[in-house]
Amino acid sequence: MDAGNQTTALGNPRLPTKLAFPASSLAQDIRHKLPADTPTAIVYCEGNFAKIDGKTANGLIRHSEIFCIVSVIDSSFAGQDSGMVLDGTLNEIPIFRDLETAVASTADVPDTLIYGMAPSTGRLSPQDRSVILEAIALGMNIVSGLHEYLGDEPEFITAANTVSGVTIRDIRKPRPSKDMRLFDGSIKAVTSIRIAVLGTDCAIGKRTTATVLTRALKARGIRTVLVGTGQTGLMQGARFGVAMDAVPPQFCCGELEGAVIEAYKAEQPEVIVIEGQGALSHPAFCTSAFILRGSQPDAVILQHAPKRAHRCDFPDMPMPEPESEIALIEAFADTKVVGMTVNHEHMDTAEIVAAINTYSSRLALPVTDALTCPEDELAEIVIGAFPSLGLRPLAAA
Amino acid sequence: MDAGNQTTALGNPRLPTKLAFPASSLAQDIRHKLPADTPTAIVYCEGNFAKIDGKTANGLIRHSEIFCIVSVIDSSFAGQDSGMVLDGTLNEIPIFRDLETAVASTADVPDTLIYGMAPSTGRLSPQDRSVILEAIALGMNIVSGLHEYLGDEPEFITAANTVSGVTIRDIRKPRPSKDMRLFDGSIKAVTSIRIAVLGTDCAIGKRTTATVLTRALKARGIRTVLVGTGQTGLMQGARFGVAMDAVPPQFCCGELEGAVIEAYKAEQPEVIVIEGQGALSHPAFCTSAFILRGSQPDAVILQHAPKRAHRCDFPDMPMPEPESEIALIEAFADTKVVGMTVNHEHMDTAEIVAAINTYSSRLALPVTDALTCPEDELAEIVIGAFPSLGLRPLAAA
Repeated sequence: MDAGNQTTALGNPRLPTKLAFPASSLAQDIRHKLPADTPTAIVYCEGNFAKIDGKTANGLIRHSEIFCIVSVIDSSFAGQDSGMVLDGTLNEIPIFRDLETAVASTADVPDTLIYGMAPSTGRLSPQDRSVILEAIALGMNIVSGLHEYLGDEPEFITAANTVSGVTIRDIRKPRPSKDMRLFDGSIKAVTSIRIAVLGTDCAIGKRTTATVLTRALKARGIRTVLVGTGQTGLMQGARFGVAMDAVPPQFCCGELEGAVIEAYKAEQPEVIVIEGQGALSHPAFCTSAFILRGSQPDAVILQHAPKRAHRCDFPDMPMPEPESEIALIEAFADTKVVGMTVNHEHMDTAEIVAAINTYSSRLALPVTDALTCPEDELAEIVIGAFPSLGLRPLAAA
Repeated sequence: MDAGNQTTALGNPRLPTKLAFPASSLAQDIRHKLPADTPTAIVYCEGNFAKIDGKTANGLIRHSEIFCIVSVIDSSFAGQDSGMVLDGTLNEIPIFRDLETAVASTADVPDTLIYGMAPSTGRLSPQDRSVILEAIALGMNIVSGLHEYLGDEPEFITAANTVSGVTIRDIRKPRPSKDMRLFDGSIKAVTSIRIAVLGTDCAIGKRTTATVLTRALKARGIRTVLVGTGQTGLMQGARFGVAMDAVPPQFCCGELEGAVIEAYKAEQPEVIVIEGQGALSHPAFCTSAFILRGSQPDAVILQHAPKRAHRCDFPDMPMPEPESEIALIEAFADTKVVGMTVNHEHMDTAEIVAAINTYSSRLALPVTDALTCPEDELAEIVIGAFPSLGLRPLAAA
């Protein structure tokens, strides 16, 4: 179990076979555009690929900008295509049964082993440990998003020290507290329009929607930057951001404010999209409180899964309705929800269309699905709320 | 700078000289009742006693259940009585200029040196380091509430290892993440009435009010337990609790839920009082979001400082009115604000009385001051909201 975001339609038997924008096409498109010197990586996800606890692997095979993902390790799907397993669409990233086989399939040893799971025990199995040690011995760098920092473990430090140039990178590890910043209100000087993508639950597609929204706005010629707030988004390549759920609460608002200011100064974007975490109403995971305070968004887009019966991993907690979540967000922060996006899990095409119509009418807001509808509909939600953004000719992406 | 709670009336020149319940009488009362084997402690607060950054020292000389505080180190007040400096009331805890003088004043070397500051730099000065090393060499244990863990520093580890039995305890250090718990809703089984003491700002007296409320309810014969959420409260002796601002957000709700359940199981109290942190409306410090979600309070008492012009440490952030904070709390969580308490900083007795009357009428809620009014008024707020608690004869404390 892990809080944090999850892309949509995970192993969904009812997923329409022909989507307008199949999720795994993203990975293919981007992979073929990556610079030649992009580090190659194998994603280790033994026993968890296409499951909730394999969310880092699932996210990376769909979208990866800083690593070129060459294969996945999960013996339960050995020999299959990871795109087919996850989304029913070929993505040419094969799944192997173990590290040896995965490495043997490429001409050179890949640069990196990414630990692609969030195991419910919160700790590495003996098998995980031996795979990491094996990768280090092969000269591969290690990247991990675990709460337990691999780079602090003597066993791995010793191993890495014996192989020249091997690094261990813990994505979730925050800066030392003495280097962290407190919120100081200097975000006031950021003139970019800030849009937070929040949701009614964990693992509901906030990160995916934020990624698609960023791309859709760029496609309209609007300078847009994504600020990530979770380890998967940061591993996928968000240049700005902070893994909020590992930062002490005292610094959460300040570190996010700092990331937004950094993105603003570096890119002078017209729009900054901020990835949400959990749900403001969630009894267990309400990091979105810090996201609203730290990024002070001008507007919010809410992601909701109409067919989800209860909070992910909490069978006793019913899902909120979008109406109550919107009221809560607007009571908690000086912002406005300007649109809703649908996570189409457990829905067929007709149900998606019906849900979009129903919610659009009920909420009096524009509603779309980031994955099955044209991406420009997402951009239109933002442009509708901030018409000055629309005052330009359509530009190429 | 540090978030977290602060007791009231810090070095307030306008504080009425005759309060019904002078703050520092608490320390005296309790100190004289401590068991004979209570560890003795010197509180180190060089340059910061009676200031905001000396809040741990300030709190400890007012109330300490697990340490018997024998003296304070701060050369700026050397030779003075700490109670006189802080509250204008003798408490017989002297202030010394340095460790050597402080140790020389007692028959035996005290058991513990408590680092009693939250320095704005977030790091120890060279002078601080040498005092800690000197105390270790004298065989004293070290207790610290810093974000930087002294027990992780090779310099101190090495020093402590050379002296038999010396321990270094970092109050803020959370359990390893693998041992932390996620919120799971099991708080539903806790039948105690849960009262959270929240506030309109940091450093506004939430911890003091929670402490006084707990004592006042006990004085009415109501079994009551305090759950601390900050390092000062835990150092003062709250038997249950967690230093929230050092717990990763993913585990904040769960760890607090766990502390409430632990208090419930251990004491089967009728009332559990939960110390708040920051303010739900605070742009920088909204840990109260986790406190509301994790402890699911039945009711809230709100602490407010009528004469505070802006948020503590943030001259550009105006203070909220109690009305807006109450609306926010009640929108954010399924709970009810049942009373308000006044922090009387910058107020004389007439102003305190006027403020109590004004707010009581404006909010249609009972209002009191935990320090200048009879403590039973605080108990009455809770009994008024939960009349079943009042159905018993008045009992001795």
